[in-house]
Amino acid sequence: MRRVGIIGVGLTDVGEHWDKSLDDLFVEAACKALDDAGVRKIDALYVGNMLSMFLREQGHLGAYLADKLGFRGIHAVSIEAGCASGGAALAEAVMAVKSGRFKLVLVGGVEKMTDTLTDEVTYGLTFAEDVYGMEYSGATFVGLNAMLHRLYMKRYGVSEEKITSLAVQAHENASKAKHAMFKKRITLEEALKSPMIADPIRLFDTSPICDGAAALVIAPINQEVDRRIIEIVGSSIATQTMSVYERRDMLWFEATNKAAKRALREAGISIRDVDLIEIHDAFTITGVLSLEALEVFNRGKAADEVFLGKTRLNGDIPVNTFGGLKARGHPIGATGIYQVVEAALQLRGEAGANQIKRDVKIALTQNIGGIDSTAVVHVLRRIK
Amino acid sequence: MRRVGIIGVGLTDVGEHWDKSLDDLFVEAACKALDDAGVRKIDALYVGNMLSMFLREQGHLGAYLADKLGFRGIHAVSIEAGCASGGAALAEAVMAVKSGRFKLVLVGGVEKMTDTLTDEVTYGLTFAEDVYGMEYSGATFVGLNAMLHRLYMKRYGVSEEKITSLAVQAHENASKAKHAMFKKRITLEEALKSPMIADPIRLFDTSPICDGAAALVIAPINQEVDRRIIEIVGSSIATQTMSVYERRDMLWFEATNKAAKRALREAGISIRDVDLIEIHDAFTITGVLSLEALEVFNRGKAADEVFLGKTRLNGDIPVNTFGGLKARGHPIGATGIYQVVEAALQLRGEAGANQIKRDVKIALTQNIGGIDSTAVVHVLRRIK
Repeated sequence: MRRVGIIGVGLTDVGEHWDKSLDDLFVEAACKALDDAGVRKIDALYVGNMLSMFLREQGHLGAYLADKLGFRGIHAVSIEAGCASGGAALAEAVMAVKSGRFKLVLVGGVEKMTDTLTDEVTYGLTFAEDVYGMEYSGATFVGLNAMLHRLYMKRYGVSEEKITSLAVQAHENASKAKHAMFKKRITLEEALKSPMIADPIRLFDTSPICDGAAALVIAPINQEVDRRIIEIVGSSIATQTMSVYERRDMLWFEATNKAAKRALREAGISIRDVDLIEIHDAFTITGVLSLEALEVFNRGKAADEVFLGKTRLNGDIPVNTFGGLKARGHPIGATGIYQVVEAALQLRGEAGANQIKRDVKIALTQNIGGIDSTAVVHVLRRIK
Repeated sequence: MRRVGIIGVGLTDVGEHWDKSLDDLFVEAACKALDDAGVRKIDALYVGNMLSMFLREQGHLGAYLADKLGFRGIHAVSIEAGCASGGAALAEAVMAVKSGRFKLVLVGGVEKMTDTLTDEVTYGLTFAEDVYGMEYSGATFVGLNAMLHRLYMKRYGVSEEKITSLAVQAHENASKAKHAMFKKRITLEEALKSPMIADPIRLFDTSPICDGAAALVIAPINQEVDRRIIEIVGSSIATQTMSVYERRDMLWFEATNKAAKRALREAGISIRDVDLIEIHDAFTITGVLSLEALEVFNRGKAADEVFLGKTRLNGDIPVNTFGGLKARGHPIGATGIYQVVEAALQLRGEAGANQIKRDVKIALTQNIGGIDSTAVVHVLRRIK
């Protein structure tokens, strides 16, 4: 199989972009990635998006955004896998390049969630769950995650503060990140006093509704590597049951575990070789369970380890160095691409105030849809 | 690149399935394809669907349908490209197999359009057009196609009856097809007297709102070819502007022309080598323009040639041998897969009463999204 590298990255600030449309955001991120790669044409476009069909009444985003970018005639499709749509779009694009069909592929994730009533957005997000099995019972994503949060505390005897400490670290990293939505530090005390959303999940345990777009240009790696190319050495998608109640253990993210094992095997490394990780912390409990499924920490121990500071920017294993879903923000279909762009910036040594102090060479990103019904894991390596 | 073959096919009857859900339909088609292939497990699932997110409020169809099929852990994604979603899902799956990552891949298209008010469906279908550029002006798909229909008649001096004759042939083929929605012959006189939908498009010029699912199992072709495998020798997606008014010539399906040229080049053949064609006749005018863009007939001449019977089941170049979108039916995201399943059945000599009498070896399928904003072309060849 061909080797595939990231040759350009681009992103928009994450936030409430009342003055920008979905295509404005996408074009901005895409043009930045194309400029960064120094390319003016592409063979194919892969779009990661979840909610445009429902919130914006705009489908057919492949052809639509290729048109907005002025690329006529190219191959273009849109990939949907709930909140893992961005990661899934990248995984498909990687295979397309490996197949030999394309040389230059633009992969972008985008979501425009504002301009719509919050209730509509919350409702739309439940479409990543089983409609009849879950949504019609009145369950929402935050409600389901609240059950996991409570079960985790009870089974492992872990306090609320330890789980919530992940959010404090997220804000700490985001405070220095130009493109992050919440550039503000919070204390654990503030987080633990924030309004209850779905007991025991509080406001600061959750990621925000927001807008954003991120993009990558990927290409086969050839002999003349003349830039700081980041190789995609592992790429995998795995799925498990849609509904948590059908799982042997609701606290085990089996899809994440499977996707990570496959991607690490492809890369020929173990999780211990990874220098930094981007995890899908849609809620603090989601982040904690992700760290355990990735086998970064033992089961029932991740919250303790986070609380001890091991996942801070210059801790043992830096996690979500630009603030993650919690504080950089979670523009659904774009999130998986933001993670990879941010990891690539770290590996290129271009993370600015967020740069990890020691040399970093290998990164892993984990992007999930539903409650780990789909998991997408990528392993990136700096090759120069 | 690896060679890829179709080793199993399955489909449901097309119609108004008031007693079946989207997943019932998908599972039925998928199980038939798996049985036909003689396989019990797969590495990956690709789903083509357009409207589930809007009409059924169910997204995340990759993980959702993998779960319904009982395949735990597999790679699964959903692809959307308007009415070309099915064809696009196949094109992505073909590259995934060519990349070397997967051996057995299930590709299914599904759409559940009934159980919803017709107005909602018509509205949802416009999401394959540019929302701001077209839909908000009040244009619908049939309205836009009506403009093309009128322009075609005017520019080329072609009568209504010649264009509409494509529908008569579609019903003729569907009358013998078990899975077709309209198993009923119509006369040209009946068609020309049918109610006006959007002048000059009449009821019998249009394809129906319906439900259906179709599936394929694809795999690398190895030495021990022990079944009637159909090789996918060409596969391409092309795009052009979303809106017809931005095109140099509204009557030229540039995306179809590009995708066909690429797919035929990959197959190393010309359109003259093709024995049968499945075209995207969402409206009779769409079918006529598709035949011209595929260079089967000269510009301005396709309706004449159709009227002369050249595209009938045993004509010079058989087109839509099971009735096409018009009479087999057009379950949006499934249509592209129905086309490939039907072409494969012809090449396998298993088309029953619809079997073309002479030996057929090569087929071409054309599936479009919007008004040719996306075009997907596949070229299939019997290898034994």
